[in-house]
Amino acid sequence: MKKLILSISFAFLLFSFCHAQNSDSIAMKRIYSEALTNGKAYSWLYDLTTKIGGRLSGSPQAAQAVEWARKIMIEAGADSVWLQEVWVPHWVRGEKESGIIIQSNGIKQDVPVCALGMSVGTPKDGITAQVIEVHNFDELKALGKEKVKGKIVFYNHPFDQTFINTFEAYGEAVKYRGSGASEAARYGAVASITRTMSSSDNDFPHTGAMGYNDSLPKIPCAAISTNAANLLSSILKADSKTKFFLKQSCQMLDSTKSFNVVGEIKGSERPQEIIVVGGHLDSWETGKGAHDDGAGVVQSIEVLRLFKALGMKPKRTIRAVAFMNEENGGHGGKKYEELAEANHEKHIAGMESDAGGFTPKGFGLNMSDDKKQAVRKWAPLFLPYNVYDFEHEGDGSDISPLRKQGVPLIGLHVDSQRYFEVHHAASDVIENVNRRELLLGAASMASLIYLISTYGL
Amino acid sequence: MKKLILSISFAFLLFSFCHAQNSDSIAMKRIYSEALTNGKAYSWLYDLTTKIGGRLSGSPQAAQAVEWARKIMIEAGADSVWLQEVWVPHWVRGEKESGIIIQSNGIKQDVPVCALGMSVGTPKDGITAQVIEVHNFDELKALGKEKVKGKIVFYNHPFDQTFINTFEAYGEAVKYRGSGASEAARYGAVASITRTMSSSDNDFPHTGAMGYNDSLPKIPCAAISTNAANLLSSILKADSKTKFFLKQSCQMLDSTKSFNVVGEIKGSERPQEIIVVGGHLDSWETGKGAHDDGAGVVQSIEVLRLFKALGMKPKRTIRAVAFMNEENGGHGGKKYEELAEANHEKHIAGMESDAGGFTPKGFGLNMSDDKKQAVRKWAPLFLPYNVYDFEHEGDGSDISPLRKQGVPLIGLHVDSQRYFEVHHAASDVIENVNRRELLLGAASMASLIYLISTYGL
Repeated sequence: MKKLILSISFAFLLFSFCHAQNSDSIAMKRIYSEALTNGKAYSWLYDLTTKIGGRLSGSPQAAQAVEWARKIMIEAGADSVWLQEVWVPHWVRGEKESGIIIQSNGIKQDVPVCALGMSVGTPKDGITAQVIEVHNFDELKALGKEKVKGKIVFYNHPFDQTFINTFEAYGEAVKYRGSGASEAARYGAVASITRTMSSSDNDFPHTGAMGYNDSLPKIPCAAISTNAANLLSSILKADSKTKFFLKQSCQMLDSTKSFNVVGEIKGSERPQEIIVVGGHLDSWETGKGAHDDGAGVVQSIEVLRLFKALGMKPKRTIRAVAFMNEENGGHGGKKYEELAEANHEKHIAGMESDAGGFTPKGFGLNMSDDKKQAVRKWAPLFLPYNVYDFEHEGDGSDISPLRKQGVPLIGLHVDSQRYFEVHHAASDVIENVNRRELLLGAASMASLIYLISTYGL
Repeated sequence: MKKLILSISFAFLLFSFCHAQNSDSIAMKRIYSEALTNGKAYSWLYDLTTKIGGRLSGSPQAAQAVEWARKIMIEAGADSVWLQEVWVPHWVRGEKESGIIIQSNGIKQDVPVCALGMSVGTPKDGITAQVIEVHNFDELKALGKEKVKGKIVFYNHPFDQTFINTFEAYGEAVKYRGSGASEAARYGAVASITRTMSSSDNDFPHTGAMGYNDSLPKIPCAAISTNAANLLSSILKADSKTKFFLKQSCQMLDSTKSFNVVGEIKGSERPQEIIVVGGHLDSWETGKGAHDDGAGVVQSIEVLRLFKALGMKPKRTIRAVAFMNEENGGHGGKKYEELAEANHEKHIAGMESDAGGFTPKGFGLNMSDDKKQAVRKWAPLFLPYNVYDFEHEGDGSDISPLRKQGVPLIGLHVDSQRYFEVHHAASDVIENVNRRELLLGAASMASLIYLISTYGL
């Protein structure tokens, strides 16, 4: 008798499981189909990037983007939309930078250059100094003060093409952008220029945040394009006395008030359990912030729109956030976590899209092993959408402050082959975003959030 | 004792297996790294598309491309290179086509239009007739002769965005291009125009092969861009008497002699066992044939180059083929099979890349179940390269004639989201090909061929 009851229970469980799987796959099919046919993320991104454009923290464009995001969240159907005040650094690029290679025979060549974000400017008339090329910090150290003093250090560290995931090549090279200026200053350099971290050779210099070591002199630093780096390196081989002229008028102004934009759909059964999904609204102003990270913002708002358009009422609360100031401070993400803590909010999951609006391939999972297993049991539901990789970690810098609250964090992982051609460069524009790829990412995010909102995590 | 021997044998087998797996993964890492750092496929494709351009069968450009491919195969290090004579149809587009929407109030609008490949031309002064819009053949049939006679049939069949694999949406829509003209002629139409099969709305008309039913009148047919189709459809809703003017001077000339280009590396242990890998050299002349299928050609030649550059001596023979005439006849593929049969060649596998030079995601397998299992046991070796899908079928039209010899056939499967934005259109240019994506495809092909050449299939 007991055996029979057990069998019946098992059959019931199996039935429930199959039924859930089936209703979940139907729900996901609806989400993907709605996104691909009526999705708004692409047209929103078109507006954001062409009508507002690049939007660095503190800029008038960033302020416009806050208003824009508020409006779009309402349009998407959020139950409520509000702003979170965030104070942000206000760095400005000033006039267009100038970089000139000056050979010892007097021949000059203009090359594409841009100040690294947060760098100090040069004196008004620029800096001219002999160039010393290094490929890494070890070479710099070996040269020492004697050979570096009074010169411009040229970090010509190549992007390692052998990594399949281009983020790994970026991660390995980015330290020359981040701390190259201070390391050069340690040995008496007057400025530093860094080879752009890009997977392709072209004429776009890529900016990005750097930081100073406060115990060392603050020298100006800039990025030069990969083509310019190749040119400068070949000229230096023939003429070691080659000089470089760098002029940039960037400067740091007073901190400015800005905002995170938050929109949510209240959960129908467990409204106190929050799933947050976001991207960052600020972007470098060298480009239009299309992939980085307008994509993540419009995908997150599209998640709200999909639930509303399909009449899906999530059991748990879903909150989309357009974070401010990811690029040069991270103050939006920190503020969000502080407020969550102060308001005793219970976040059951955080998700971010900040790797570009490319074809999704999986989700990075940063959570306990048992929660990873819980997410991985949903993986088969994603296979029809070519989303197959749930094995790696990696979430997102705006949601990362929530780690200290123990919130399970998730990052949308996408095909990374094209990202570092446009990242922080003038080529980060809507023309380099594909509508279907962007919307597949949004549908994948909405699908995983649908599952978490239904079953918890 | 027997047990011990068995255990030792098993241990030995296990050791051999692990050793093979390990040496294979090392070989594959070398292949991918060499491709991503020194790969030539992208620069070859740059030359093919910018110096020669579009190259339809029978054109002077196709003849130049044959010479080019011969030269590149030698440069890649093929042991021997030869041509296979192929007679091909010679269809020419003539002067630029003209398409004008003429409303009954006399307002005229030029719209982007191009003749479908193999279509007849219009009379010299064009055709002007009232337009009748249908979405499918059932609607056409329901209208019947009475409503269709003397008119231009406008097939406005939308590309179904809900398919995740865009080839499925294409496959479902392409019949209106292929046989739309004859079906319209069946009911007395004087011409047909077809909505471009594209996943995005823009101003590029996409050409492609059509065919006539010999028992019906041959009427001219053309493609109009998706934007033009949307415009025409909205105008027709308000003004059903709207006419269309179509003028095209395309025509069929006499068949022409052309060639497949073949290059091979002889196998060191079983030279009589051949693995053929190819793409097609001909392309529509509306664009430059970058993704379709210059990509497949340069990837196939890159396979040879990778073996040579890495000093890998394949046990079995590897043969790269640049097939002629895939787009409008398929005579190159047929000829290759005929010669293989006539020469008593033993092909152990055929592989094709003809889905665009995008990020690879797997291989389509068209072979017996036991051979599929043999290939699938290698799948884990590909996971570090994000190549994970070995579950589907689909090979390639140039290698498909080899099916009748029972040759196991393989197609490179790639991310399909962008393909039907450029397919057969003016946008199929090198600027829309990403170097790393193209080379990852070539490395994936070379890796699977390395495994087959080592272990057989």
